[in-house]
Parts: sequence; C-alpha cells; structure tokens
Amino acid sequence: MNFLDIISRKRDGQAHSLAELTEIAQGAASGDVPDYQLSAWLMAAFLNGMNTQETADLTRAMAESGDRVDLTGLEKPWVDKHSTGGVGDKTTLVLLPLLAACGLTVVKMSGRGLGITGGTVDKLESLPGMRLDLSPEEMKEQAARIGLALTGQTPRLAPADKALYALRDVTGTVANIPLITASILSKKIAGGAEVVVLDVKCGTGAFMRSLADANALKASLENVGEAAGLRVRAVVTDMDQPLGGAVGNALEVREAWRVLTPGTKLTPAELRFRGLVLGLASMTLGAAEVSGDPVRALDSGDALEKANDWLRAQGAAPSTLLQNWAAAPVVVPVPSPGGWLARLDARACGEIALDLGAGRRTKEDRIDHRVGLEIHAPVGTKFSAGETFVTVHAADEAAADRAVAVLTTEGEDTAVRWSKRAIATKPMILE
Amino acid sequence: MNFLDIISRKRDGQAHSLAELTEIAQGAASGDVPDYQLSAWLMAAFLNGMNTQETADLTRAMAESGDRVDLTGLEKPWVDKHSTGGVGDKTTLVLLPLLAACGLTVVKMSGRGLGITGGTVDKLESLPGMRLDLSPEEMKEQAARIGLALTGQTPRLAPADKALYALRDVTGTVANIPLITASILSKKIAGGAEVVVLDVKCGTGAFMRSLADANALKASLENVGEAAGLRVRAVVTDMDQPLGGAVGNALEVREAWRVLTPGTKLTPAELRFRGLVLGLASMTLGAAEVSGDPVRALDSGDALEKANDWLRAQGAAPSTLLQNWAAAPVVVPVPSPGGWLARLDARACGEIALDLGAGRRTKEDRIDHRVGLEIHAPVGTKFSAGETFVTVHAADEAAADRAVAVLTTEGEDTAVRWSKRAIATKPMILE
Repeated sequence: MNFLDIISRKRDGQAHSLAELTEIAQGAASGDVPDYQLSAWLMAAFLNGMNTQETADLTRAMAESGDRVDLTGLEKPWVDKHSTGGVGDKTTLVLLPLLAACGLTVVKMSGRGLGITGGTVDKLESLPGMRLDLSPEEMKEQAARIGLALTGQTPRLAPADKALYALRDVTGTVANIPLITASILSKKIAGGAEVVVLDVKCGTGAFMRSLADANALKASLENVGEAAGLRVRAVVTDMDQPLGGAVGNALEVREAWRVLTPGTKLTPAELRFRGLVLGLASMTLGAAEVSGDPVRALDSGDALEKANDWLRAQGAAPSTLLQNWAAAPVVVPVPSPGGWLARLDARACGEIALDLGAGRRTKEDRIDHRVGLEIHAPVGTKFSAGETFVTVHAADEAAADRAVAVLTTEGEDTAVRWSKRAIATKPMILE
Repeated sequence: MNFLDIISRKRDGQAHSLAELTEIAQGAASGDVPDYQLSAWLMAAFLNGMNTQETADLTRAMAESGDRVDLTGLEKPWVDKHSTGGVGDKTTLVLLPLLAACGLTVVKMSGRGLGITGGTVDKLESLPGMRLDLSPEEMKEQAARIGLALTGQTPRLAPADKALYALRDVTGTVANIPLITASILSKKIAGGAEVVVLDVKCGTGAFMRSLADANALKASLENVGEAAGLRVRAVVTDMDQPLGGAVGNALEVREAWRVLTPGTKLTPAELRFRGLVLGLASMTLGAAEVSGDPVRALDSGDALEKANDWLRAQGAAPSTLLQNWAAAPVVVPVPSPGGWLARLDARACGEIALDLGAGRRTKEDRIDHRVGLEIHAPVGTKFSAGETFVTVHAADEAAADRAVAVLTTEGEDTAVRWSKRAIATKPMILE
C-alpha cells in the first residue's frame, strides 16, 4: 500500500488495518518512510484519533519493529513497571528489588529525564560504576541469575517508537492518548513483559494535569494492553507535590536505600513514598497471581539484599552507598514561617531542581548528580516557626540563594503556601 | 515564535496571526523550517481549516516569499487568468491575446500538466522555438511592448508555494480549499496582477467533482482575493466532458488558432469552447472596468494579430503554425453507432490522452506533442450511424487501437454513452 493512501485514510477519519499500522511502524523503524510523511500521519492520528484495536495493533507493530527480549526459560511471571513521569519519582529503585525479592522476574528498560521529569537512568548513574547499557542477552542472563535487570533505552528494542517519539517531540503530537499508549506499551512488549504495572502521574508536576486526562490515559493503557495480550494494572497517583523526601539524583538514590534498609527512621515524606511502593507491589503481585508479603520483604531486609545483588551485578558497589554518598558542597536548610504546609508545588520544585542542575532542559545538558531538594514532610504537615521544611543541596551559594528565594516567597501562585489552619490533603493513590 | 507553537495553535483549532503565517511562508521558502514540521502544520491546517482572513494573510505572505513582478509604469489594468485545470482546456491560448487586443495588460505564469490535467506550458512547447522561461524583467519589458507575456513557473516567484505544494503532494493535503486558494492567489499577486479571472472547473475531469465543492472553492477565491486586495471574478464551468474540439498539446494549439483566425468554419465543439472564451473575456473586461467588444476583437483579426505578436516575441514562428502543424503518424476516425451522444467522459478522455502519450503520469515522463483526441461535437449532438464523432491521433497502431477500443465500448460506466432520444445538456458556464 502506498503511504500516501495510509495518510489519507487517517486524514479522512477511517480506522487503520493491522497491515497499515505495520507499514507505519516498519517504515518509521527502517527510515524508508520519510519524516514529512510520518509527521503528516502523526498529526492526522492526533486529530482524528485511533480506537482501541488500532492502538493495540500499532503497539504490537512497534514492539515487532526491532529486537525483542525473549525471557523463555526464566521463571514466570515476567513483570515490568512504568511511570508516566514526575518530580522525585524514584519508585523503580525500590519496587524492582522488592518484586524480585517476592519471587517475580523483573526486566525493565528505563529512560533519562527531560525538563522537570526525572529519569531512572540518571538517578542510577549517580552510583559510580553502574552499567546501564545491557544488551538483551545480558538482560536475560542477569534476570535468570538474580530475578532482576534494568537497562537504559537501546535502539535495538522498539526502534519505531524511538523514531516516532523524536518526530512527535518536534511536531506538536506528543499529548495524544493513543500515541502515548502505544509508545509505553510497545517498549514493555519488546522488553519481554507479560504483567505490566503502570503508574499514571496526575498533577502540576505530571504530563497529565487533570484527573480526567489521567483517568483517560489509565483506561487506554488498560484496554489497549489487554487487547495486545498483556496483563496490565494501572493506577493514578498524585503529582501535585513531589513524591517522597527528595528531588535530585543522588538524593533520590539515598532516599530509596533508606526505604530499603530495615530499621531506618523514615521522615513523613519518605513514609508517604514507602506507602506508594507497597501499594504498587501488592497490585503487581495480584496481577501476577503470586502470593507474597511486600511489607515483610522490606522489613526482613530481603528487598535490600536483592537491591545490593542488583547493583553488584551491574557494576556498582552498594555496600558503601549510604556512607560514601556524594554530598553537594552547599547545603542550606529552609525554615518554615510556621503553620500547615498547604502547597509544595511539584512543577515548581522540578523547576528549582532543574535550575540547581539536577535535570536537563535540552537533551545535551549535563546533570549534577549531587544537587536537589530534600523535603522533610508532605503537604498537610504542621511546622513550627523556624523549623526546616526543605533543605537545598546546591553546587554553589548563588544557586542555593535562588532556590531559597523561590521557596520563601509566599502568595497565591507561588511554589509554597502556608495555612493557619489544618488543610484537607489528597491521598497518594487517586484512582 | 517557536515553530512548534505555530503547529500547536493550528492543531488546537486557533486562528493564526499574520506574523505566524509569515513565519510559515518564509520558513517554507528558505528551507529554515524542516519539512516534517511544515507537513505536520499542513495536516493540522487541512483538518482544522483556516478562515478567510488567515487564508488572505497566508496568500500575501506566500506572495511576498520571493521576487514579485512589478508592473509599475505599464498601462492598467494588470490582468491575470487562472483555471483549476481540466481536459482540453486551452482557454489561455485564446483568452490572453483577446484580452490584450481589448487593451488590457496581461502577465501570466502557467504550469505544466500532471495526470489527466493538461498544462499551458506543455501545449505551447509544441511550437518550435517558443521560450517559456522569461525572467520577471523580460516579462515586464514584453508586456510593455505588446501588452502580453506568459512564462512557465519560476522558483523566483512565490517560492513558499513551490515548497508547500511539493509537500502537500506527498502528504495527502492537496484537497483543501484554503490551501488551494492561497496557492492560486499567491502566484497571481507575485505575478503583479490586480484583476484576476478564475475558471473553476467542475466535473469528472476536474479536481472538483461536485458543484457544491466547486462553488465552495469559487467563494473562497472571491472572498480571499478581495481580502488580499485583488479584484477577482470567478466562474464555475463544466468539465464533465472535454473542453472544445481537441485534447492533446499540438491539437489544442491548432484548435486555439482556428478559433483565433477569422472566417474559420468552426465545429460545434470548437464553438462551445469559443463561447467560454467570450464569456470569460466579457467578465474580465467588466471586472477591469474597461469597455471593449471581444466578439469584434476575434472577428476583426485583432486577437489573432496579438497572438502572432506574442508568439514572435517569445521566439516561435506563428505565420506557418496551421500549415506546418505536426500531425501524428496514425490518425483513426471513430464512427458513431448512431444516436445522440449522451456521455463523453472528461476523465476517461484524459486517461486515453495520457495513454496515447499526451500527458505525464509522473513529473519525469516525456510528452508526445502530436497525439490526442479530436472531438467533433459536444455531448447532446445527434450523429448518424457511421459518422465520425472522435478522431484518434496516435504514435502507433497499437496505441490507436487501445483508444478506439475504449471509445467504442458502451455500457453504464463507460467513457462514451449513446441515447436513442435527444438528451438534456448542461450549460458551459454552471455558476
């Protein structure tokens, strides 16, 4: 079929066949279809939509556009996890070893951060020696050995997604639920998963700002995942405030290891993060139809042991992780004026972290792993006047000053707002 | 403004400012905006539309994207003519010298044919020596001297249209009234015209198949033309059957010269074509607010004299045009079975002419100027059994046989249909 006919069908609001969607995915992966035709199709798909069957077919076609990780022979179920991205989201670092400690086989491909959204690969790269370029063969070998492997994105898996995503980024076609769904799920299928747990972030620090949009994406992921042969569990979680007690790469790794280490006295913010991890773990075990006790796996140190195995397998030295943790040169506590913390805006905290050097505005920017924000308690907590509610970790005084200025400016639209009365708070898991 | 923001505005159904449309036109002309962004914008504009003001602004921006022919100093009014294209449409060849003979200054840029649609440049290239690559300066000098100049498309005028049209052709975004309107009118403005007469073809051999679509394009051309500062007159004319007595390049030039030459005994098909030319001429004179008598200009030989001046000025030798006319090697009369000619489908005749070699299926194809169809009378005419209704002009017997086979097959969906009773016919000018 002529690619012009494929564009015209979607332009005219018709549904695509699997054969057409395969031509799109193969054409994008091979480069045989020129970018200007792919981008015209992307805009037509954006505006005229795709139904569940089309999106499932596109997902499968994209998954089949390159290599696939074949986990045959490994203990089932094969599990993957995905978050749509947010500020302070280090869930993967705790959830993956926790699930592996509960007997699941977890193989995951993770991305880098861009803008205010952090990336798991960036966080793990704060660990000296950590390798994040495993081949599909290495992934399988390691998962067989310790039940767990994580790599950065490789051009060999779902190359159609890589090509289409790069085009969507520059043609205004990112914010489209069928295209987002196919992008997420195609990589999960190519990565070998059967059971996929999806954390759809919702709020100012997330791609989906409204609960309606987040629920629509959740439903699409569930319906399309099922149509594509996956067992999918999806949940909508709060991203109006940063997740947990840290934003910034090494700070988040430290938080993850604190949560993994039995007996650590966790802060209220860290406890909120731990709650999300345990919720996602239970949901995953349910979807995988495996019995297990995630709380016990954390409290017993089994999850920490699995995490240490994991880091060792990929070249890092976990034993000294918390002791040798690289601190930022300038650490400034930010005092509360007193009262209930009514807002600690996730987007604003993401912007502060970006300004400190914890993220990248463009793909070429370099990250300073040491910098970021330590958050001592979640929204709704009462602080005394002068009590530290956030600690800024900065590369220099000037950067720290800018962060403190933002965090101490109060008003209607500011990053932080204080209340004289107790306030109602949102639950961590919204849907 | 970021081009991504421009795409997003049209994607979200917002109206563009003149500044945005200027960025699009300049970016297309210069190549500074990559094709994949232009094609995403084209699809968004195709699906979400543009209002009259936007289309007029885009038209002006495209006209200003390159050189412009400045006719300052030449006698006013400055007139141009455009047809949306059809089968056997040689109107320009007669109308331009006729208008110049009536005292108008006519400067026109014409295109080549593609598919079943013929192109004025191809027809004129059947004349040995005819130059169709005049520079803007040569156009102006010639128009000053003889009131008339015609050139092929030059990359110097409206380069934004050239770039956008090439992309529309490969991204399924051709059939869109605002984009068609801007493409047509931008070239007219860049060519220096003030008064523009537009012939919107409607029927099986035209781009617009239905009267509703043709009327919508006519209205858009009138409204946008006025908003862009042009005096526009548009008319919808029949293209269910070929125009006049010939389809094919040299055959059409011969027909044009027969109509221009006083005293020629014209066939009924040629008379129908002459009627359209005279109608368009009257309309143009009205729009230009110039008094003149087109019938007299034809009958007196003034139009022929102007046509001869024109050909001479551009390097061809008109004096021997009808005598030395290049005939095709195989000429086959096709007899009627007897009855009233009820259908002579324009699209089918265009396809036959293409097969004979009169047109090009792709831009690279070469044209045989000699071949085509001679049509002896329009639909509605009564023929005796055995009387010739079409004559095939072919390069060889095999090609002639294929053409005759199509023209003598009768049925419901065939190129030709005969009736035992007189039939109602459509007028040449529909709206």
